[in-house]
Amino acid sequence: MPDPSLLEAFPTPVDTPFVVEHVAEEFTSLCPKTGHPDFGEVVVAFEPAAGGTGGLCVELKSLKLYLHAFRDRGIFYEHSVNSILDDLVAACRPRSMTVVGHFNPRGGITSKITARMSATG
Amino acid sequence: MPDPSLLEAFPTPVDTPFVVEHVAEEFTSLCPKTGHPDFGEVVVAFEPAAGGTGGLCVELKSLKLYLHAFRDRGIFYEHSVNSILDDLVAACRPRSMTVVGHFNPRGGITSKITARMSATG
Amino acid sequence: MPDPSLLEAFPTPVDTPFVVEHVAEEFTSLCPKTGHPDFGEVVVAFEPAAGGTGGLCVELKSLKLYLHAFRDRGIFYEHSVNSILDDLVAACRPRSMTVVGHFNPRGGITSKITARMSATG
Amino acid sequence: MPDPSLLEAFPTPVDTPFVVEHVAEEFTSLCPKTGHPDFGEVVVAFEPAAGGTGGLCVELKSLKLYLHAFRDRGIFYEHSVNSILDDLVAACRPRSMTVVGHFNPRGGITSKITARMSATG
Amino acid sequence: MPDPSLLEAFPTPVDTPFVVEHVAEEFTSLCPKTGHPDFGEVVVAFEPAAGGTGGLCVELKSLKLYLHAFRDRGIFYEHSVNSILDDLVAACRPRSMTVVGHFNPRGGITSKITARMSATG
Amino acid sequence: MPDPSLLEAFPTPVDTPFVVEHVAEEFTSLCPKTGHPDFGEVVVAFEPAAGGTGGLCVELKSLKLYLHAFRDRGIFYEHSVNSILDDLVAACRPRSMTVVGHFNPRGGITSKITARMSATG
Amino acid sequence: MPDPSLLEAFPTPVDTPFVVEHVAEEFTSLCPKTGHPDFGEVVVAFEPAAGGTGGLCVELKSLKLYLHAFRDRGIFYEHSVNSILDDLVAACRPRSMTVVGHFNPRGGITSKITARMSATG
Amino acid sequence: MPDPSLLEAFPTPVDTPFVVEHVAEEFTSLCPKTGHPDFGEVVVAFEPAAGGTGGLCVELKSLKLYLHAFRDRGIFYEHSVNSILDDLVAACRPRSMTVVGHFNPRGGITSKITARMSATG
Amino acid sequence: MPDPSLLEAFPTPVDTPFVVEHVAEEFTSLCPKTGHPDFGEVVVAFEPAAGGTGGLCVELKSLKLYLHAFRDRGIFYEHSVNSILDDLVAACRPRSMTVVGHFNPRGGITSKITARMSATG
Amino acid sequence: MPDPSLLEAFPTPVDTPFVVEHVAEEFTSLCPKTGHPDFGEVVVAFEPAAGGTGGLCVELKSLKLYLHAFRDRGIFYEHSVNSILDDLVAACRPRSMTVVGHFNPRGGITSKITARMSATG
Repeated sequence: MPDPSLLEAFPTPVDTPFVVEHVAEEFTSLCPKTGHPDFGEVVVAFEPAAGGTGGLCVELKSLKLYLHAFRDRGIFYEHSVNSILDDLVAACRPRSMTVVGHFNPRGGITSKITARMSATG
Repeated sequence: MPDPSLLEAFPTPVDTPFVVEHVAEEFTSLCPKTGHPDFGEVVVAFEPAAGGTGGLCVELKSLKLYLHAFRDRGIFYEHSVNSILDDLVAACRPRSMTVVGHFNPRGGITSKITARMSATG
Repeated sequence: MPDPSLLEAFPTPVDTPFVVEHVAEEFTSLCPKTGHPDFGEVVVAFEPAAGGTGGLCVELKSLKLYLHAFRDRGIFYEHSVNSILDDLVAACRPRSMTVVGHFNPRGGITSKITARMSATG
Repeated sequence: MPDPSLLEAFPTPVDTPFVVEHVAEEFTSLCPKTGHPDFGEVVVAFEPAAGGTGGLCVELKSLKLYLHAFRDRGIFYEHSVNSILDDLVAACRPRSMTVVGHFNPRGGITSKITARMSATG
Repeated sequence: MPDPSLLEAFPTPVDTPFVVEHVAEEFTSLCPKTGHPDFGEVVVAFEPAAGGTGGLCVELKSLKLYLHAFRDRGIFYEHSVNSILDDLVAACRPRSMTVVGHFNPRGGITSKITARMSATG
Repeated sequence: MPDPSLLEAFPTPVDTPFVVEHVAEEFTSLCPKTGHPDFGEVVVAFEPAAGGTGGLCVELKSLKLYLHAFRDRGIFYEHSVNSILDDLVAACRPRSMTVVGHFNPRGGITSKITARMSATG
Repeated sequence: MPDPSLLEAFPTPVDTPFVVEHVAEEFTSLCPKTGHPDFGEVVVAFEPAAGGTGGLCVELKSLKLYLHAFRDRGIFYEHSVNSILDDLVAACRPRSMTVVGHFNPRGGITSKITARMSATG
Repeated sequence: MPDPSLLEAFPTPVDTPFVVEHVAEEFTSLCPKTGHPDFGEVVVAFEPAAGGTGGLCVELKSLKLYLHAFRDRGIFYEHSVNSILDDLVAACRPRSMTVVGHFNPRGGITSKITARMSATG
Repeated sequence: MPDPSLLEAFPTPVDTPFVVEHVAEEFTSLCPKTGHPDFGEVVVAFEPAAGGTGGLCVELKSLKLYLHAFRDRGIFYEHSVNSILDDLVAACRPRSMTVVGHFNPRGGITSKITARMSATG
Repeated sequence: MPDPSLLEAFPTPVDTPFVVEHVAEEFTSLCPKTGHPDFGEVVVAFEPAAGGTGGLCVELKSLKLYLHAFRDRGIFYEHSVNSILDDLVAACRPRSMTVVGHFNPRGGITSKITARMSATG
C-alpha cells in the first residue's frame, strides 16, 4: 500500500470552523484480478480541527504525490477509498472527513464508493 | 426470472460504514405485452454490513451478468426493479439498499421506478 | 374535461413501498382566452398502495391517452394540473401523489405548477 | 416605482394546496448610479390561499406588464426584488411567497437576491 | 493583506429578512510558495441585518475593488477565504455569512474552501 | 392540408442580402396511421429576395398560425416538411430556402427531414 | 444475419431532393468473441430517389424491427454497420446513404464506424 | 433610429489581418406592433482594414452605448440587424463584417437574422 | 517505447470504403522532466484499405493493451502522438489515418496534438 | 511589453506535419484605460516546421511564464493577441500559426480576437 508518510500537514490557520474539499480528477490504480488499469476521481472533504487545538490541514502537493502512489497498486475500489480515508484521518485528525471515489465504467457499469470517518475512526 | 445464484458477493473489507453505488447504463428487457425491447439504466446503492459481522458486497462482474439475464425476459418496469432489489438483498444482506430504474421514453413518456429495502425485506 | 375513465390501473405487484415517476414530455392544451396552443411537460410521481391491500398502479398507455385528451381543451395551467391529480388519485388511491406541470415560455415567462394529494384529496 | 395596480389576480381554482412558480427570463431595469441598463431573471414562487377562503393567483399577462414597468426605473437590485415581493403579497395574500432576482455579471460579479414573505410582510 | 477599508456598505433597504449572493468569477492571487498565479471564483452569501437596526449591505463596486487587491498577494487558499469572511463580517455585521472559494486545478486537483461566520466571529 | 393563405408576407426592408432563420419549437401533428400525436421542431431558413425587386419576408405571427394548422392533420413527416417548404416558397419567392423538421423519438428512433428549394421549386 | 426482407419502403412523396436522417438510440448486439452484449446508437441518413422515378423511403417501424433483429447476433461493429448499409441500399436504392454506428465504451474505448454508399454499392 | 455618431473608432493597431467578434448578450428593443419589449443577443464580427491604410476598429464602450439606444425604439428584427450593420460599416469601413441577431422566443418561435456587408455596402 | 508488436490487426471485412474512429478516454504517461503522470484522451481515426487488397483494421483489445504500455514511459506529448501514429500505420497500412491527443491542464494550459499520416508515412 | 526572450523552443521531434494547440484558460491583463483587470483565455495553434529543417516547438512552461507576464500590463485586447502572435512566430518560425483571445464580458459584451500569421508576418 502507498506509504502514508507521504502525506504532510500544516497547522489550521484559524480557529473558526471551515470546510476543505479537494477533487483529484486523475486517480488511477490497477485491478487486482486482471492487472488492467482503473481510472477515476477522488474527492476528499473535511472540516479541520481548530488551529488553536493543534488542528491540521493536508498539504496539497503531498496529497497529489500520495494519490499517485496508487498508480502501480492492484487494489479493489472499496479498499482504496477506505485506505485513503484512514491515512488522511491519521495525518490530520479532522473534526469530520468524507472520501468519495468515482470510477469509470467497466462493462457498462460505473461505481461510486463513499466512506465517512466513523466515531471510532 | 434471472437466476439469483448468478450474484456473487465478497466480504466487506472494513467494519466502518460506507456506501457503494453501481450505475449500469445498459439495461434492456422485453415488454411483456408487445415483445418489443425496453432500454434503461439501473442504479444500485447500498450500505454493506460490517465485515466483522459477516457483511457482504456484490461482486461487480457477477452483477453485470445477472443484469444481462433480463435481456430475454418479458417483464414490467415495476416488477424488474423490485426483483433486482429482492435478489440483491438476499445475496448481500446490507444495512440498507435502494434500486432505481430509469427507462427510455415510450410514446413520449419516460418512467423511473425506485424501490427501497423495507424493514421486513 | 378529459374522460377520467380513460385511465386504467393494474394491481401493485409487491407489498413493499416503492415510488413511480412518469414524465410525459409532450403535453399540449389550448389557452382558454386566446385559443392558441400551450405546450409543456407533465410529471406524475406516486407511491402506490401495497398490492396486498388492493393497491393500484396507473397503466402507462392509458396515461398517455388520457393526457392526449387535453389536446383540444381550453384550460388554464392551474386547472389542468389539479384535474390530472384528482383523476389519478381517484383511479389509483395511492399512498401519496404529486403532479407537476412545466409550461413553455409565453411572453418571456415560463410557469411551473405543483399539486400534491392533500389529506382530504 | 411601477404601479402595483397593474397586477391582476383571479380566484384560486381549488381549495387543496399547490405551488406556482413563474420565471420571467427577461427582466431589465436601470442602474440608479450610472443609468446603464441591468439585466436579469426574476422568479416568483408562491402557495396561493385556498379558493374557498377567497384565495387569489396572479394573472400571468398582468405580471408580465408589471415587470416591464421596471424597464425605465433606476433601482438597486435589493430594492427591486423586495418591491416585487411586497406588491405581489399585497395583490394575492398568499400562504407563502419567495421572489428571487438573478442579475447578469457587472465587473465580473453576478448577484442573486432572495426575499421571502415574512410573518409581518 | 488587502486593506479592509476598501469595503463600503450601505443601509439595508428593508427590515424583512432576505439573502444576497455575489459570485465573483475572476478571483486571482499568487501562490506564496512558487509565486505563480492562482485563479478561482469567490462566492459571498449573507443575510443582512435589518435596516431598522442599522443593518448594512456591501456595496458591489467596493467588493470588486477589495477582491482585486488580492491580485498581487502571496496567500494560501485557506487563508484568503477566511480573510475575506472576516473583513466582510467586520464591514457589514450580517445575521449570517458564508464565503466559498473555488480554485482551478493545480497538478490535477481542484480545491474548494468554505468558511461560515461563527458565533464568535 | 393547412391553408397556405394563412401565410402573410411583408416587403424585404433592404436590398442587400441577408438570412432569416425561424425556429418553431412547438410543432405537432397526427400520425396518419395511428392517429396519435407527433411532436417536433420546425426550422425555416431563407434568404429573401431584395426589397427593390419586390422581395418578401414571411410575417412571424402568420407563420405561427400556419404551423398551428397542422395540429389536427394526419400527415407523414416527409410530407409535412415538403408541404411547408412549398407553401413558404409560394408565399415569399425567396432566393433560397431550407425547411428542417426534427421529430421526437418514436420506438427509440428520432427523425430529421431536410428539404431545400430546388431550381424548379 | 437479420432478414433484409423485414425492411419495408414507401414511395418518395415528392420529386424534389430532400434528406432523411433516422437516429436509433437503442441498438444492441452481441460481441462475437465473448457473447457479452454491445450497446450503441445507429444513424441512417439518406437522400431518397425522386418519387417520379420510383424512389423509395424506408418505413420507420420496419426499420425499428430490422434493427431489433441484431439483438441476438454475435457480430463485430465494422460488420454490422456495413450490413445495415447494404440492406438499406438494396431496399431503397437512394441517391446517397450514410450509416454511422456509435458504440459505448469497452475497456475505456468508444468506437464509431461510418460507412457510405459507394459507386458500386 | 439610434444616432450612429455614438459609435467611436480607433486605428487598427497592426497591418496584418485579424478578426474581431463582439457578442452583446443583452440587446433589447420594442416590438413596433405591440410596444412590448423584445430581447436578444447581437453578434458583430469583422475584419478591420489595415492600420497603415487608415483602418479602424469600433471602440467597445461606444458600441455598448450605441446598442443601448435601441432600448426605446419600436423596430422589426430584420430592420435593427441591417441598421446595425450599416452604421458599423460606415464607422469602420472594414474588409468584411457580419451582424447576427438572435431573438428570444415569441409564441414559441425564436428568430435569427444574419446580415453581411455587401460589395456595395 | 511501447512494443508495436502488441498491436494486432484483422482483415477489413468489406471492399467499400468506411471510416473507423476509436476514442481511448483513459490515456496516461509520465512527464519526462518531472516524472509526474500526465493524463489525456487519444483519438485514432482511419480509413482501412479494402479487404480485397489485403486491408487491415486494428483489433480493439490489442489497441487498449498497446496504449496501456505508455503508462510507465517518460515521454513528451508531441512524441507519444507521433509514435502512436507511426506504429498504427505500420500495423494497418490504412488509406488515411489521424491520431489526436487531448491532454489535461498543467499550470492552467491544456494541449492538443494532431498528427496525420503523411504521403511518405 | 512582456519579454519575448521568456519563450523557449525545442526541436520538432519529427519531419511529418502535425498540429499543436495550447489553451491557456487563465489569461489576465489590465485595461489600459481604467486599470481594472481583464480576464480571458488564449488559444495558440500552430503547425511546426519539420525537425529536419530546424523546426521548433514552443516549450510549454516557458509559454506559461510568458503569458503570466501580461498580468501587470495595461493593454488592449487587439494589441495583446497580435503581440503574442508576433513573439511566438519569431520564436518558432512555424509553417502556420493562429492566436485567439476570448475575453470575459465587460458591460454585457464578450470579445474574441483572432490573429493569423500572415505571409509577411
